[in-house]
Amino acid sequence: MMSTKNRVKVAILGASGYSGIEAVRLLAFHPFVELAVLTSEHYVGREVAQVYRHLAGLDLPAFEEMRPDLIRGRAEIVLSCLPEHAGTEAIRELIGQGVRVIDFSADFRLKDHEVYKTTYGREHPAPLVARQAAYGLTEFHRSEIREARLVANPGCYPTGALLGMLPLISRDLVDPASIIIDAKSGTTGARRSPQLEQLFAEVNDNFRPYKVGNHRHVPEIEQEIAATLGREVAVMFVPHLLPINRGILTSIFLRPRSGTTAEDIRAAFESAYAKARFIRLLAHGEFPELKNVRATNFCEIAFVLNRRSQTLVVLTAIDNLGKGAAGQAIQNLNVMLGFDEAAGLLYPAPVP
Amino acid sequence: MMSTKNRVKVAILGASGYSGIEAVRLLAFHPFVELAVLTSEHYVGREVAQVYRHLAGLDLPAFEEMRPDLIRGRAEIVLSCLPEHAGTEAIRELIGQGVRVIDFSADFRLKDHEVYKTTYGREHPAPLVARQAAYGLTEFHRSEIREARLVANPGCYPTGALLGMLPLISRDLVDPASIIIDAKSGTTGARRSPQLEQLFAEVNDNFRPYKVGNHRHVPEIEQEIAATLGREVAVMFVPHLLPINRGILTSIFLRPRSGTTAEDIRAAFESAYAKARFIRLLAHGEFPELKNVRATNFCEIAFVLNRRSQTLVVLTAIDNLGKGAAGQAIQNLNVMLGFDEAAGLLYPAPVP
Amino acid sequence: MMSTKNRVKVAILGASGYSGIEAVRLLAFHPFVELAVLTSEHYVGREVAQVYRHLAGLDLPAFEEMRPDLIRGRAEIVLSCLPEHAGTEAIRELIGQGVRVIDFSADFRLKDHEVYKTTYGREHPAPLVARQAAYGLTEFHRSEIREARLVANPGCYPTGALLGMLPLISRDLVDPASIIIDAKSGTTGARRSPQLEQLFAEVNDNFRPYKVGNHRHVPEIEQEIAATLGREVAVMFVPHLLPINRGILTSIFLRPRSGTTAEDIRAAFESAYAKARFIRLLAHGEFPELKNVRATNFCEIAFVLNRRSQTLVVLTAIDNLGKGAAGQAIQNLNVMLGFDEAAGLLYPAPVP
Amino acid sequence: MMSTKNRVKVAILGASGYSGIEAVRLLAFHPFVELAVLTSEHYVGREVAQVYRHLAGLDLPAFEEMRPDLIRGRAEIVLSCLPEHAGTEAIRELIGQGVRVIDFSADFRLKDHEVYKTTYGREHPAPLVARQAAYGLTEFHRSEIREARLVANPGCYPTGALLGMLPLISRDLVDPASIIIDAKSGTTGARRSPQLEQLFAEVNDNFRPYKVGNHRHVPEIEQEIAATLGREVAVMFVPHLLPINRGILTSIFLRPRSGTTAEDIRAAFESAYAKARFIRLLAHGEFPELKNVRATNFCEIAFVLNRRSQTLVVLTAIDNLGKGAAGQAIQNLNVMLGFDEAAGLLYPAPVP
Repeated sequence: MMSTKNRVKVAILGASGYSGIEAVRLLAFHPFVELAVLTSEHYVGREVAQVYRHLAGLDLPAFEEMRPDLIRGRAEIVLSCLPEHAGTEAIRELIGQGVRVIDFSADFRLKDHEVYKTTYGREHPAPLVARQAAYGLTEFHRSEIREARLVANPGCYPTGALLGMLPLISRDLVDPASIIIDAKSGTTGARRSPQLEQLFAEVNDNFRPYKVGNHRHVPEIEQEIAATLGREVAVMFVPHLLPINRGILTSIFLRPRSGTTAEDIRAAFESAYAKARFIRLLAHGEFPELKNVRATNFCEIAFVLNRRSQTLVVLTAIDNLGKGAAGQAIQNLNVMLGFDEAAGLLYPAPVP
Repeated sequence: MMSTKNRVKVAILGASGYSGIEAVRLLAFHPFVELAVLTSEHYVGREVAQVYRHLAGLDLPAFEEMRPDLIRGRAEIVLSCLPEHAGTEAIRELIGQGVRVIDFSADFRLKDHEVYKTTYGREHPAPLVARQAAYGLTEFHRSEIREARLVANPGCYPTGALLGMLPLISRDLVDPASIIIDAKSGTTGARRSPQLEQLFAEVNDNFRPYKVGNHRHVPEIEQEIAATLGREVAVMFVPHLLPINRGILTSIFLRPRSGTTAEDIRAAFESAYAKARFIRLLAHGEFPELKNVRATNFCEIAFVLNRRSQTLVVLTAIDNLGKGAAGQAIQNLNVMLGFDEAAGLLYPAPVP
Repeated sequence: MMSTKNRVKVAILGASGYSGIEAVRLLAFHPFVELAVLTSEHYVGREVAQVYRHLAGLDLPAFEEMRPDLIRGRAEIVLSCLPEHAGTEAIRELIGQGVRVIDFSADFRLKDHEVYKTTYGREHPAPLVARQAAYGLTEFHRSEIREARLVANPGCYPTGALLGMLPLISRDLVDPASIIIDAKSGTTGARRSPQLEQLFAEVNDNFRPYKVGNHRHVPEIEQEIAATLGREVAVMFVPHLLPINRGILTSIFLRPRSGTTAEDIRAAFESAYAKARFIRLLAHGEFPELKNVRATNFCEIAFVLNRRSQTLVVLTAIDNLGKGAAGQAIQNLNVMLGFDEAAGLLYPAPVP
Repeated sequence: MMSTKNRVKVAILGASGYSGIEAVRLLAFHPFVELAVLTSEHYVGREVAQVYRHLAGLDLPAFEEMRPDLIRGRAEIVLSCLPEHAGTEAIRELIGQGVRVIDFSADFRLKDHEVYKTTYGREHPAPLVARQAAYGLTEFHRSEIREARLVANPGCYPTGALLGMLPLISRDLVDPASIIIDAKSGTTGARRSPQLEQLFAEVNDNFRPYKVGNHRHVPEIEQEIAATLGREVAVMFVPHLLPINRGILTSIFLRPRSGTTAEDIRAAFESAYAKARFIRLLAHGEFPELKNVRATNFCEIAFVLNRRSQTLVVLTAIDNLGKGAAGQAIQNLNVMLGFDEAAGLLYPAPVP
């Protein structure tokens, strides 16, 4: 194992939220990095273990205030887990300092700033910086990510959806005019902040759709499909809230091109993911389960081509905090720094 | 309230399973019936409250052996909660005795015995009796149910799916060639029997699809659509297992006919359900939630017509043991016996 | 059933919280009362069904502002579900108007205002009114409750604890110097307000004790034991938070008096609860389960006298929103108004 | 990291049950061992990843039949996760072959074979072998474990209870005549086998005590207290079933010796656990939570000395599959083989 002094120093901004603390948990055991700076709005000055006792016993810096000038020289790469808008200024400043950044927010994912404005209701806060951002869906953008100063880490829903369809769209195996996505997420997809509708008694023993057809992740999904396809598409997206902490299971319904066979589909996935360390393409008859990816960076994928109804369904499972956030960010960090892409990310899910 | 001696005597076969005991719980407070006979394979001779203490203090007969000859003269109407095939012979005999029957199994739901054979892997056990069966989706078959000697109570998934689309199909507002159903069910949709995959630790903290595209409820859904439409259709159906006891939430994705407006859709639902006591058509922007229908016979329905993707999604929520089984059976019993259709069924869900 | 015009008019203050809305749900089907006024801080002017859709279809007044002067003449009896201190002034005014009140808060439970001050950190807000309050543990205070202008509805933990031991203490079967209570509650024991520690992801898949040895319900428990015993006692009380919506399961560990037999204990319970409609004293070998009392006013009680360790454990199960709050309040209302004590309260738990 | 060829070869018998597969998951990432043999009754011939997909991608042997003769020469140390009685013969044979064994069952925990007979209803199956067994509560028996040919890995409930009281008993800070234990366990404490009472719908939304006062773990707890104390004791033990997969939270109520202070108690724990890597003694005001130890070998301990009631409560949290089974077994393996005691066991809990 690399000695501590040679490790790459990493800062995490907003490290006390759900995705931030998951990044801490994962990076604390990463063989090639050192957690040098952790910032938190609510817990400045407190030791991590005072707030998150499951991380007791690890050698971690205390939470500090988020001030880009204080990070200068203390970290080569920054993971920003700050919410939309909140981190933009800091990211701009850090990039200016030559620090590389992986941003968990949606700020730098959308290329088209008109779409950004429509979706988020304001002008893009940093359009010049945005131009430099690589979209961090690792399996499809490795070479840009490797060189990028700024990586826009994908949304959790887009990750689950895009991994299930980009290989089919790029091979023209399905009709992109008829994409329907029915997704189900655990509650940590929302921020760790007090909200009535996130109380235990409101979520437990319940299941409900929300923002049907107009979730903010739709433009992100459509942008990546369009980039693959070379033209605009419109998808139908229905998210739901599961009574579960972690995980997103996504059904993607697609109309296969006439003549498309199950073998074609399998071949497309196998080809696209031949070197993908975190994709589990399941055997015929197996289906994804959230438990198998919990607390990991893995993505399970299965599909069924239903001849009778002329419909293909692709099913994917990820952990929204893993491949949907912190896991993928670390996978991107590994790519950016030239490490083994799977470094620190192979520990299996605790089942049951 | 009706005095006990004038009440209609009811027998429940297989009363100790999940749907059977729910029928007991509901009928114990029904104003016009008396529970006269309860049978159980596993608990013969035991008082109900010895097995199900939540029913202690009620005046209920003990569980007894299921023998049609012993029911003669003791019940005018029978709810059979026995599994497929297990109750067929008894039902034939009871009908022969002039007893009316509401059957919870799939035995008498499929009109086409070739489809039955393909689906269940054997010849239909009682084709002559089957001819007399009314399909018990109350909102659409009241007049046949009123006269029927035998009512085939619908499956839980078909109930959630059909209530969300039949009004649209009958008005030709959607293209029936493109029906996609993504459904999520609580665990009591499966029988109360020891199975590894139903253990708490296998289901909790997990979510998974199963029988993708080939669930046994597909032919039942297709049959009812075809009966409405006048021609065959094929639907894509993906069921999932929720970590929750009760409830089915269904997304139905439909391609609207060119020119179909949201007003058309709302009008179709309002017209179809003008007199429906258990359908809650939600306002624009509201979505179904399982908690609101738990332990009730209600069905919540909402829809979103997404112009961009040319897709309509209808969302429905029912309790699989309520409107999906025992609740609808009692609704049918009320219709058969000329009672107020909602008698005994209006007590609201316990929320939270 | 009583015609609407003869029904007793009831107001509920704070009707949109967890215990308030449970009182609404239960009283909406009560045969002898009419819900005339519902107040809510957050939802003034909104229909109940807009906030709580599970109550759609019932004939309920809209939520209104809490103003005692507006209640005058509109209700004979008031259930106040307002938090500690928030309702005191209103209750004083209502009592002055001759309206009878059942208060869910802790304000009028403690007889000793020094204890109140120590426990709640301020002077008692209405000591003169407090003198008129009956302690609403129905099974032990029926005659005072019947006459009371003000009933202090017991806390949820005290209800679960006291029902399990008062019969034994009053017969001197146990040593009151050695009472240990280990209690486990669902999350609706806390108010319906946004708090980080009540978020789904913080409670789910977790279990934890809190306020060990110094919960505010301790003085209430000790007061009632002391009143039974005629002298002061100190109990050890450890509450826990269960990942469940409703229910409190309580273990009460007691040292039996030398010579006390299991028969003595059973006889004490049977005698104390001979006429108690909501107490289920379980048979030897049976143990309470939360599911059996969910959404009801029932309390299950069992005990084991362990000779080897010279220890008696009594186990009780209640629903914290039922017998622990709204259910018991309605039981008290029934007593106060001379109704059948069980009116509106016999509907069984939905199991599973 | 050690190269593969120098690693110690380990066999796991009954590797497909809940504790067995957890041992596989943990050992797959252990730096000094190699999983050489995995047996399973139900899955002979199947790859681990076919049954447990969360372990896909790891280099693991397929499940094979459990035959001690086939293990000869292939493993230096064996973890037996077979149930009581089922593994006795194999263990005897393996020990005879010079293989060291860590047994997860209760077979070799009880020193007194009369107690064994009373508890398990039959003669001890291998009394001679039993004499060689060390009791594997690592923190208290390191030196015996280091030399042992056979380690009886403690029960999950005894682990949670004993870690919370042995330091106090050995220093005579509490009265051993008054020990009360109230424990709450997740469902994986029971075997992975189809049982009605373990179905999701029976456990979810429920909480219940069971085997009150007569659980089979009582003699094991009493034996270890007696060994510490030098005389017999009788404890009162009440276990409960939590609607959670993993974890045991234990309340231990003790009567402090006159004069015992909170400082004495803290000092006793600090002294006993000065070198314990997996014990987290919490600060005053902090309490154990199951989430913090989930999927780990850690044990959280806190205590409250309540002067008013003269009662001390110690609260402990472990994962029943971690410190309560597979984790502790690997900790013992590390001790037996002279490895760092924490090797392979430091990865933190996934929270939330």
